[in-house]
Amino acid sequence: MSMTDQAAFEPACPLPAFEKNTVQLAHGGGGRLMRELIQEIFVRAFDNPLLATMHDGATWHVERGTLAFTTDSYVVRPLFFPGGDIGSLAVYGTVNDLAMCGATPLYLSAGFILEEGLSLDVLRQVVESMAGAARAAGVSIVTGDTKVVDRGKGDSIFINTTGIGVVPSGTHISPCLVRPGDVIVLSGDVGAHGVAVLSVREGLSFAGDIHSDSAPLHEVIGDLIAQGIEIHCLRDLTRGGLAAALNEIAGSAGVGMTIEEANIPVLEPVRGACELLGLDPLYVANEGRFVALMPASQVEAALAVMRRHAVAGRAVRIGVVTDRRSPPVVLQTVVGTNRIVDLLSGEQLPRIC
Amino acid sequence: MSMTDQAAFEPACPLPAFEKNTVQLAHGGGGRLMRELIQEIFVRAFDNPLLATMHDGATWHVERGTLAFTTDSYVVRPLFFPGGDIGSLAVYGTVNDLAMCGATPLYLSAGFILEEGLSLDVLRQVVESMAGAARAAGVSIVTGDTKVVDRGKGDSIFINTTGIGVVPSGTHISPCLVRPGDVIVLSGDVGAHGVAVLSVREGLSFAGDIHSDSAPLHEVIGDLIAQGIEIHCLRDLTRGGLAAALNEIAGSAGVGMTIEEANIPVLEPVRGACELLGLDPLYVANEGRFVALMPASQVEAALAVMRRHAVAGRAVRIGVVTDRRSPPVVLQTVVGTNRIVDLLSGEQLPRIC
Repeated sequence: MSMTDQAAFEPACPLPAFEKNTVQLAHGGGGRLMRELIQEIFVRAFDNPLLATMHDGATWHVERGTLAFTTDSYVVRPLFFPGGDIGSLAVYGTVNDLAMCGATPLYLSAGFILEEGLSLDVLRQVVESMAGAARAAGVSIVTGDTKVVDRGKGDSIFINTTGIGVVPSGTHISPCLVRPGDVIVLSGDVGAHGVAVLSVREGLSFAGDIHSDSAPLHEVIGDLIAQGIEIHCLRDLTRGGLAAALNEIAGSAGVGMTIEEANIPVLEPVRGACELLGLDPLYVANEGRFVALMPASQVEAALAVMRRHAVAGRAVRIGVVTDRRSPPVVLQTVVGTNRIVDLLSGEQLPRIC
Repeated sequence: MSMTDQAAFEPACPLPAFEKNTVQLAHGGGGRLMRELIQEIFVRAFDNPLLATMHDGATWHVERGTLAFTTDSYVVRPLFFPGGDIGSLAVYGTVNDLAMCGATPLYLSAGFILEEGLSLDVLRQVVESMAGAARAAGVSIVTGDTKVVDRGKGDSIFINTTGIGVVPSGTHISPCLVRPGDVIVLSGDVGAHGVAVLSVREGLSFAGDIHSDSAPLHEVIGDLIAQGIEIHCLRDLTRGGLAAALNEIAGSAGVGMTIEEANIPVLEPVRGACELLGLDPLYVANEGRFVALMPASQVEAALAVMRRHAVAGRAVRIGVVTDRRSPPVVLQTVVGTNRIVDLLSGEQLPRIC
């Protein structure tokens, strides 16, 4: 075998990794630059014993039980918005998906797709935000991956987080359990996340006045479960907003739903921005709001628990589950008419998460 | 609250999802188009009971034991190459990372970042390939996510897969266990994957003659473990190739390594292509090759087991672990000289996986 000398594969005068202070294709190449990037930025920020083993994957011991597993990629633009950024969103979004399974979040993986030329300072800021969000949510980022794509073939940073959690023994939460007569409880005001992101993206004058609701929801869910509240189904109100979440649950459960407009909280600035932009807050993505569906007997106790947590301080009863009908979700408006709340075909707000 | 009529958010005459036969931003919007895309393409291909629950995440029961968890994003170009495609690569790559932890792969998540305008036929082909690879590897794709980015902000398809596996009781595989005197066994010829991808990308005349080695490795690893072979460390030879893998292990274990050029198999066409392209096969990415480091007493039995499996049919002893030295990895060349096999600073071949 004719092995060319290794020096032939190195640039005559290699640039130090951080001198140019941007991400290079070489940062994704499996060589020294990638190792430096991982050590200097990721491992330093996410520091924990499982990650430190630097193996191909993380391993840990489990006791007998039920695990939950969920994945989400984050492509939000801009990367930073009032109330959050792509890093904290990538942690809280996946933590929340685990919480909606009734699970206590344990571990996250983090997969980065970086565009050549991305500022390393921006990357550091995003990674620090992820690390802070992981600490706040009590999860560890235990394994990761970094790919670099050429300039113009990505959009600065995409992040995938995949989460593992443990479902407490005896907890069973599923749309299949939803029954006519169940009550629909909403954890707080809707629409703020989508409007906050859009306002910055479009450079609107109220940009900065409206903050994303992005927040981890596992503590309030954990508390509901710990207090023995019987919950049939949980769903966070991300893409497609409250409208999409209720339509999906109704579709899975084979039921109808009636909700009351007067009971659905929307903050004044969000309502104003939605009118200006021609958006319906029922369809706008949230990142820290959820619905809980439960037997009527559980509602008072559930509201009391939820209101103990800042993220659900404005929890309210917004409607009831009915027999199956098509289309399934109907809104009783403040003026006394009925309006169908259908699933939209598409998207009001692209790249909102 | 003034709710604009829902019809205001729908195009006057919405296009059926698949009429235009390309991915639209609306496919990522949480609405009907996204649900159709998921049902028609993903759920149909990945069909399994956990995925069918269509919850925010998958849940399942585990017995007491050790789990492994690993993530990888795939950005390879072109999407299709001799011997594989981004879909099968995304399954086998993550299956192999689990196998390198000594784990039996169980479940994968799949996160897609699609570029607006992507052909749905291409997406279907990639998803079918993933489904076939998952069946071949005995894993289920149990949860997923789809995001769509605007045209020019992605590159047709990026895929993240994150995997969970179970490590058999009593199995402990880690670079920390590697000791001077251990033998380095290589599972087969190196360099074919990187050269196969590059040849198609560059339109070289031998494109199609060289096939990627992309393959699942969990069966041969499972067999080694089941036969009670004592293995200290396993590593698949992806980005950075054999050279990067050995340097990483040597760095983690605090040891040196001496490998013999004459023992490292490189297929003739791969060797020729590498010479033409100025590549060193030791640094070229593989997707179905690994090294196993073990006490000398285990080598004969290990080789016998490995050679029973087509993916490791050419398994050979390529070197030994020595005391720590710097730089750690030295190649004894066929002409009798010693050459340092250092970690490259960057990348020979961008976007190879």
